[in-house]
Amino acid sequence: MSIIFKSLTESLVYQKLSELANQPYDLTRKHALQAENRLSRYVCRTELLDLHYATERLDDHVLDLLQELADELQLVDQFKMMRRGAVLNRIEGVDSENRQVLHTACRDLFCTVPAEPNATGEAKKELAKLKEFLENVDSGKLCNHKDERFNTLIHVGIGGSDLGPRSIYEALRAYGLPGRQVHFIANVDPDDGARVLAGVNLERALVCIVSKSGSTLETLTNEKLVCGALRKAGLDPAKHCIAVTAEKSPLDDPGNYLQSFYMHDYIGGRYSSTSMVGAVMLGFSLGLEHVMAFLQGASEIDCHGEEKNIRKNIPLLLALIGIWNHNFLRFPTAAILPYSQALHRFPAHLQQCDMESNGKSTDRNGRTVTGRTGPIIWGEPGTNGQHAFYQLLHQGTEVVPAEFIGFKQSQYEVDLVVQGSTSQQKLLANLLAQIVAMAVGQSSENPNRNFPGNRPSCLLLADKLTPRVMGALLAVYEAKIVFQGFVWNINSFDQEGVQLGKVLADRFLKAINDMSKSSETLEGAFLNQL
Amino acid sequence: MSIIFKSLTESLVYQKLSELANQPYDLTRKHALQAENRLSRYVCRTELLDLHYATERLDDHVLDLLQELADELQLVDQFKMMRRGAVLNRIEGVDSENRQVLHTACRDLFCTVPAEPNATGEAKKELAKLKEFLENVDSGKLCNHKDERFNTLIHVGIGGSDLGPRSIYEALRAYGLPGRQVHFIANVDPDDGARVLAGVNLERALVCIVSKSGSTLETLTNEKLVCGALRKAGLDPAKHCIAVTAEKSPLDDPGNYLQSFYMHDYIGGRYSSTSMVGAVMLGFSLGLEHVMAFLQGASEIDCHGEEKNIRKNIPLLLALIGIWNHNFLRFPTAAILPYSQALHRFPAHLQQCDMESNGKSTDRNGRTVTGRTGPIIWGEPGTNGQHAFYQLLHQGTEVVPAEFIGFKQSQYEVDLVVQGSTSQQKLLANLLAQIVAMAVGQSSENPNRNFPGNRPSCLLLADKLTPRVMGALLAVYEAKIVFQGFVWNINSFDQEGVQLGKVLADRFLKAINDMSKSSETLEGAFLNQL
Repeated sequence: MSIIFKSLTESLVYQKLSELANQPYDLTRKHALQAENRLSRYVCRTELLDLHYATERLDDHVLDLLQELADELQLVDQFKMMRRGAVLNRIEGVDSENRQVLHTACRDLFCTVPAEPNATGEAKKELAKLKEFLENVDSGKLCNHKDERFNTLIHVGIGGSDLGPRSIYEALRAYGLPGRQVHFIANVDPDDGARVLAGVNLERALVCIVSKSGSTLETLTNEKLVCGALRKAGLDPAKHCIAVTAEKSPLDDPGNYLQSFYMHDYIGGRYSSTSMVGAVMLGFSLGLEHVMAFLQGASEIDCHGEEKNIRKNIPLLLALIGIWNHNFLRFPTAAILPYSQALHRFPAHLQQCDMESNGKSTDRNGRTVTGRTGPIIWGEPGTNGQHAFYQLLHQGTEVVPAEFIGFKQSQYEVDLVVQGSTSQQKLLANLLAQIVAMAVGQSSENPNRNFPGNRPSCLLLADKLTPRVMGALLAVYEAKIVFQGFVWNINSFDQEGVQLGKVLADRFLKAINDMSKSSETLEGAFLNQL
Repeated sequence: MSIIFKSLTESLVYQKLSELANQPYDLTRKHALQAENRLSRYVCRTELLDLHYATERLDDHVLDLLQELADELQLVDQFKMMRRGAVLNRIEGVDSENRQVLHTACRDLFCTVPAEPNATGEAKKELAKLKEFLENVDSGKLCNHKDERFNTLIHVGIGGSDLGPRSIYEALRAYGLPGRQVHFIANVDPDDGARVLAGVNLERALVCIVSKSGSTLETLTNEKLVCGALRKAGLDPAKHCIAVTAEKSPLDDPGNYLQSFYMHDYIGGRYSSTSMVGAVMLGFSLGLEHVMAFLQGASEIDCHGEEKNIRKNIPLLLALIGIWNHNFLRFPTAAILPYSQALHRFPAHLQQCDMESNGKSTDRNGRTVTGRTGPIIWGEPGTNGQHAFYQLLHQGTEVVPAEFIGFKQSQYEVDLVVQGSTSQQKLLANLLAQIVAMAVGQSSENPNRNFPGNRPSCLLLADKLTPRVMGALLAVYEAKIVFQGFVWNINSFDQEGVQLGKVLADRFLKAINDMSKSSETLEGAFLNQL
């Protein structure tokens, strides 16, 4: 398969789409949502979740052109290449990571021939190690010095090693094994670790250190903090710590860790939730069966993502709707609004995954990009947000395209009828109401009660937030981000933008050190660094 | 004092500022940060915290014009009027709430003559009730049916009754009374309550229901959920529940609540953290002494906010810098980036307080606004964010002005030296490094390692995140938001934008109800509503 890397602004349909963007579909027109069976036609369905997009500001004409765009830029071909091991983490002609991008391989376990058998083989090896490890924890074969079972896991990682696992843990707490608890330490802020350690019985805790390179400043510092606390409690860190890291990294050391699980250089941190980075903690918390269901949901979407018809491919369609909103309708941000408290940290994970992937200005040919790349991603769960920032969504001067996420059933199935409806029904009713209010608006004689409408949104709707659906949801967004990177012709898999901060931090660290030895002020130290 | 309500775009200096915005201060020029003692001159100091703003894209000329703007629009006079009880929650000529705005009164306890003695008198009454209540809880005079002391508080509220209290609770956990724990339920999602209730010993729990009107759907529903769980555990809700509500609301009922604390109609939900809405929970968690320190910090900033010189008034200056970035440099969002894990929910609270206050399109004269009003506010703590969305901050095509928040000391003072520096030093070094990297940038032969710079930011810096500093920080942002509302000539104290959603939700609720009785699909119900 041969691909010529081309970007949106170089595409043949760019001009046509730009023209259509001058008069996007008017959602406030009378019967705008009912027209041409829009509500039932603008739904993309899979077994696990559906995408409803009738409340976006587009029509068949725009969709046809977005299909042309997808075909012209060979988006699905690129996605297929990625899953089959192409070296897509690179920029032509300049020094770059030059790696494959194979996060999809660690869940490609459910069909006879994986897209990239080597990487999936490696993933299977790690899963087998994890299975044995968890059996030993469950049975008490692996236990503390008092022969007590471990009931706590402290997950130490940052960025991709924290946000994804943490958000999925929160999402699936309803499925947790009884008596097991998980804590997270990420920030180099010493108070982050101190707060966690103040509330944990270390005797019964496993500590999982997650760093691919084994050299992440925050993680190594927090490892030392936790190991210090273990020693202070009379415990041997080597009998409590496990590691998730690259083979042969400094953390791959049987002398210091009960077990090392491997992550590979073809899986970037922000795409690592379905690798051992997420699986070890989730396995401890939920049991391996739920982890496998989670991986299966992700895998189903990966396969689904190879569909060429954009109207039948949820992540691709979501990506292209995002392009329409960002590059053509020129909205600088996008909100992700899950109507599920369990997903309260999912927007923060997607903020990371999206903005670190696509907040770029150099294309894959080494040129400066000509249009806008990744938007600002933000969000909080509903209904909470309705009592917060939704005021601006409805009546502010900034327009924010929204991606709602909803479920027909609750997780705990503990619910009650108040005023004739269950809480879950109220939750869903609020979700649908917001979508319609944003789209249709309302005019009023009181100008302060006027809602302009025409604020686009879509809805990812599933029956219930199970492990399998969570895997699907994660994979939808990972693929969406990757597809958008292809559209902008950028490398969504590196993160050079974090390097300068690291270099400067070292310089400031020396200055702050010197300062604490002398009477110099912080501002003085600051000044001297420039 | 007489004020003519006028907006930014009507001001005399608007045109001049617009012209200057075509060539804002270039932070990437050689020695741009050292020029004219900028780093030491562009600092606004108070006893509790300092604002460093040398890395904003402005100079003395811009600052002088912003001073003219502040004077012309009588920003400080309006702030003074607000504190003294002016009816500022209104829009001329249309039906509106017509209320005073007196959140500042509940902390105006530390000078002999409060700005608005009546409201402060009311606040003192509630504080006296709280003091007695907490003494009874501490002493065990108020206890459960087994004569055991309460050690848990479940705080049930949403929006302003949740986000502010929750973020401050998280911020000050290091100061918590030993053995006391607090949980929050906000979302109408039944899983929110179910998850909390699954992990709490209800026998020793107080339940604090917070709703000014006593009619908030989510809060009443969750109250019923918790009361159901209490009854199921054989407990009498009336012996566990307390309320924070308006006098004579349905929640002001001694038959159903151990105690009711009052909130008043002159304090909006999003500004209510220093009223009983925050104080009851914080008092239980931290003890009254820390609550008083928290109120004192807020009060100090309220007084400081009456300074007319913008270079000496932190919230006013922060507001005007925000106006410069949003209305003149045209950046649609602003990020709040605390380098403190304890502040991990503070951006979410400010997102609410800011976007619900200033996400408006009607001015105080009842006309449609002519320029942009409130920006999109978002953020997550550093250093975590550095491993996440900072890629976009440095190299993305969207520019995001940032407000950093930092502290010289940690809260727990549990720290360790790794590679020659403490974690707190590393945290601070990273913070300073990000500010400089964003401002100055870096050019590289590798285009992918090029940092354009000129990305503005400022820094709120304090010694330590104590209760008093937390109060100050909160008051800085509350006043900033209010000042910006004055600049845009909008009513920052109503929230008409949430009403349409409520009306539509009721309609959908009926449809979903009918649907569950028939075989109709969700989409069908959805369709029928339009």
